[in-house]
Amino acid sequence: MPHPRHFTLSFSCPDRVGIVAAVSQFVAGESGWIIEANNHSDQTVNRFFMRLEILAESLGNDLDRFSERFEPIAQAFNLDWQISDSARKKRVVILVSKQEHCLYDLLGRWKSGELDVEIPCVISNHEDFRGLVEWHGIPFHHVPVDRENKDAAYAEVARYFDAAKGDVMVLARYMQVLSPALCARLRNRILNIHHSFLPSFVGARPYHQAFDRGVKLIGATCHYVTDELDQGPIIEQDVIRIDHSDQVSDLVRYGKDIEKAVLARGLRYHLEDRVLVCGNKTVVFR
Amino acid sequence: MPHPRHFTLSFSCPDRVGIVAAVSQFVAGESGWIIEANNHSDQTVNRFFMRLEILAESLGNDLDRFSERFEPIAQAFNLDWQISDSARKKRVVILVSKQEHCLYDLLGRWKSGELDVEIPCVISNHEDFRGLVEWHGIPFHHVPVDRENKDAAYAEVARYFDAAKGDVMVLARYMQVLSPALCARLRNRILNIHHSFLPSFVGARPYHQAFDRGVKLIGATCHYVTDELDQGPIIEQDVIRIDHSDQVSDLVRYGKDIEKAVLARGLRYHLEDRVLVCGNKTVVFR
Amino acid sequence: MPHPRHFTLSFSCPDRVGIVAAVSQFVAGESGWIIEANNHSDQTVNRFFMRLEILAESLGNDLDRFSERFEPIAQAFNLDWQISDSARKKRVVILVSKQEHCLYDLLGRWKSGELDVEIPCVISNHEDFRGLVEWHGIPFHHVPVDRENKDAAYAEVARYFDAAKGDVMVLARYMQVLSPALCARLRNRILNIHHSFLPSFVGARPYHQAFDRGVKLIGATCHYVTDELDQGPIIEQDVIRIDHSDQVSDLVRYGKDIEKAVLARGLRYHLEDRVLVCGNKTVVFR
Amino acid sequence: MPHPRHFTLSFSCPDRVGIVAAVSQFVAGESGWIIEANNHSDQTVNRFFMRLEILAESLGNDLDRFSERFEPIAQAFNLDWQISDSARKKRVVILVSKQEHCLYDLLGRWKSGELDVEIPCVISNHEDFRGLVEWHGIPFHHVPVDRENKDAAYAEVARYFDAAKGDVMVLARYMQVLSPALCARLRNRILNIHHSFLPSFVGARPYHQAFDRGVKLIGATCHYVTDELDQGPIIEQDVIRIDHSDQVSDLVRYGKDIEKAVLARGLRYHLEDRVLVCGNKTVVFR
Repeated sequence: MPHPRHFTLSFSCPDRVGIVAAVSQFVAGESGWIIEANNHSDQTVNRFFMRLEILAESLGNDLDRFSERFEPIAQAFNLDWQISDSARKKRVVILVSKQEHCLYDLLGRWKSGELDVEIPCVISNHEDFRGLVEWHGIPFHHVPVDRENKDAAYAEVARYFDAAKGDVMVLARYMQVLSPALCARLRNRILNIHHSFLPSFVGARPYHQAFDRGVKLIGATCHYVTDELDQGPIIEQDVIRIDHSDQVSDLVRYGKDIEKAVLARGLRYHLEDRVLVCGNKTVVFR
Repeated sequence: MPHPRHFTLSFSCPDRVGIVAAVSQFVAGESGWIIEANNHSDQTVNRFFMRLEILAESLGNDLDRFSERFEPIAQAFNLDWQISDSARKKRVVILVSKQEHCLYDLLGRWKSGELDVEIPCVISNHEDFRGLVEWHGIPFHHVPVDRENKDAAYAEVARYFDAAKGDVMVLARYMQVLSPALCARLRNRILNIHHSFLPSFVGARPYHQAFDRGVKLIGATCHYVTDELDQGPIIEQDVIRIDHSDQVSDLVRYGKDIEKAVLARGLRYHLEDRVLVCGNKTVVFR
Repeated sequence: MPHPRHFTLSFSCPDRVGIVAAVSQFVAGESGWIIEANNHSDQTVNRFFMRLEILAESLGNDLDRFSERFEPIAQAFNLDWQISDSARKKRVVILVSKQEHCLYDLLGRWKSGELDVEIPCVISNHEDFRGLVEWHGIPFHHVPVDRENKDAAYAEVARYFDAAKGDVMVLARYMQVLSPALCARLRNRILNIHHSFLPSFVGARPYHQAFDRGVKLIGATCHYVTDELDQGPIIEQDVIRIDHSDQVSDLVRYGKDIEKAVLARGLRYHLEDRVLVCGNKTVVFR
Repeated sequence: MPHPRHFTLSFSCPDRVGIVAAVSQFVAGESGWIIEANNHSDQTVNRFFMRLEILAESLGNDLDRFSERFEPIAQAFNLDWQISDSARKKRVVILVSKQEHCLYDLLGRWKSGELDVEIPCVISNHEDFRGLVEWHGIPFHHVPVDRENKDAAYAEVARYFDAAKGDVMVLARYMQVLSPALCARLRNRILNIHHSFLPSFVGARPYHQAFDRGVKLIGATCHYVTDELDQGPIIEQDVIRIDHSDQVSDLVRYGKDIEKAVLARGLRYHLEDRVLVCGNKTVVFR
């Protein structure tokens, strides 16, 4: 059983005495039944992070009224906060190039209901996966990218994203570097899967780099996209063991399994509002 | 780059002095270029296991002649041997029930060329995935199984397998126990993925069993099917960490990722003749 | 830097609205600065678990006064609670037989200050490690155990434990089954390291069992000791990959590394009051 | 049971047809019983690597005669070869600074017989561990290192190593950079444990670097020392999961467990002649 309908309240604020007391007192005063709660104090920057799942039924299923009444607390403690309703599915726009393993994986999770979102469209700089995507009943947009048209191309991507009312953009091995403008506009809303254990092997052909260095494990990293290549806040990582007998093609193959799993986990954390960004790092209330 | 066309010779035999010498001498005499070689001596049962990949071109691409001339060596050392040609794609028949994660995963690998086989058909006791399978251009056979018709149903499965000239049968979360007759006839040719870290949690609802026991890691096991439920030779296993906050539904979700990866690895080892069975155990020349 | 002096309050109680509010309100009212907080609702048994680290200085370093004033809240919510002061080192009594890897590991952690406890004594059914233990300035007690004297031997172990004012007893590969009476008296205070990934391979010679079954990973389990052999609540587990070339002696060797790491982690969780028992399972606020 | 007395022959050479045949024919001609054999073809540099364990008894326990008769084969195929006798314990000189976890770990393995070597001496730039080392009956040499005396200090280290007839030098968290001369003289004979998953976080304070970057796993790397800091051939690596709640001090603590395990594995591979160097990479016949 997945969690029943719930509101997810998450926030960060300057750390001080009394935050949890005030927030939980408020929730209790609203008869809110807390299903799950997590918090974290970052001692380096003296900031407090919290996430609460509250049973919607216990609050009369009324998100607006709850939010309105919560506002004074939020102001008193200077919260940077958001609240979401599990009954409203998030809208995930997927970007892909010519490798389909992450796309297949996401479509499979979506089709089986594990990934409980809307996928309003898939965007690609190639035509290869139109058939697959459309078979799933999902619109497919071909937006070619070449050296000359980058600005226009990313503007078109942004238009499709906006028209689709996208909540999050997923680069499922989309082998293009987005424009700084797009990165800035969708800050902490674009997820990328990089095929190395960052910060090792930034940039192109990381499996070749890993092969050349002779490492004994390879990995993948899901991170938010910023305008610095492969430097954004890391959400999730994992590794797999290799040895001297593995060629680059073996690394690529093993790596795909890690990429799929890491992207899927990172995306789920994001969709469930489990990821709070703190500078260039993340708090992930797994 | 995957390996160029090669012949894969694998065998086991009683251990004694001179086996490697005789075999490698023979291969060298045929001008055979060995790409990869592995061997293992099982001290418990005093048996020797070997696997060789030989460049086909270096042998004039003639498998039959090589095999014929190898026969006297095989007899002299009492080898239980087989040889295969990478140019002939193996034929994989997939059986599935109502969970599609392993099916999606295998189809994705096949579509991208990573899984370089023929899939002559998919067989299911439900109609659910006909559309998906047929979209991939693969025949789909619906063979319902109920308490009364088991014998007839498995006979039909066997007929489809034979008609498809299947080399290997993959139970991709096929939630039915095959007949002993079928297990015996396709000994070491049926792969199952069991959703626990065997030998823990044999049988039904292993994630519920794991949840009840309070383990801190869950796993999956790819094994050959024998007529004893979940007791066949283990080919591959893996685990993932969970904690007290994970419900059974979380275990199921995390488990699926492990199941997919473990089944795919186990199947690849089998297809590349890397798995040699020794009693109820396997030698896997990874 | 380890955490500064703090009080650790942990409890479980029937789940209902308002627990976190009441507790955090109380702590805030005492000006308590919360360093770390975790909680968990077990939906199966409808029970709530919480752990708080509160800066001692913010409470005037007065544990007694805090506890006294907390008592009414504890009663109102029917808490099963405990509080501890990080300034008071816990007293760990180690039992060992003839394998020293866990003993060495614990002594090394203690000597370096990583394991910040008192070790009032080590008890063994053999004399082998007297020199090592005494070199560390720790009393060593030899309590032989044989088939006839078990009751007397365990009574002596208990006397040593009591005389040492022990808080927790660690079976660091102590290859004896304690008496039910001792298990009951020190419920959830005796930690064992079992050399398998439980529930697989209960009882004697688990590495031999693992070898015979042909598993591809082996593991270790740290659990509380109950009067049922290897059935107590699991605190921590881990695994390591093996393959067909590994003999039982290799499994033993690889296993030792996992045993050491798992026991050390489990013990630390226990010492920091991170482990709350729920039936035969544990909540571990890592 | 560990392997019975055996000779370990290992070599690399230009790849061509007939190497395995010639070598195994020779061994068979000497009635040599092969316990374990591994080989690898590096396609990038077209070089062949092989390792054989041969039962000493089957060769009349005569290493010299075997080596002498093998010489013509070695010349014919241009082998870079070595052979060792398991009956002669290797001599391991340990260097340490002010952190004892790796030292404790190695001494524990040595004392229990798992690490079956001679430790002729331990060298340190501090006096801290003299007592521990001498209690084990091992000579301890204090060689202070400061900015002015580096050359003299490393010359003294080299003299102690030579006087001890050392086979291998282990930097067990020896926080000093050896001189290029020493690195060159003991090429592929000095093992270091670096406390990061290389190539990430080269140099000083890697756990701080990892904390600042917000990675979700940390690791350790055992490698041969070259004159470029942390750039030598990697022998073994491993990682452990962390999360946002872990401070640098937690990373250090978790990291120590990985460091100990990785160094112990890497050292064992080296001692059993399982590591063959190929450029800046290693072939590890695990």
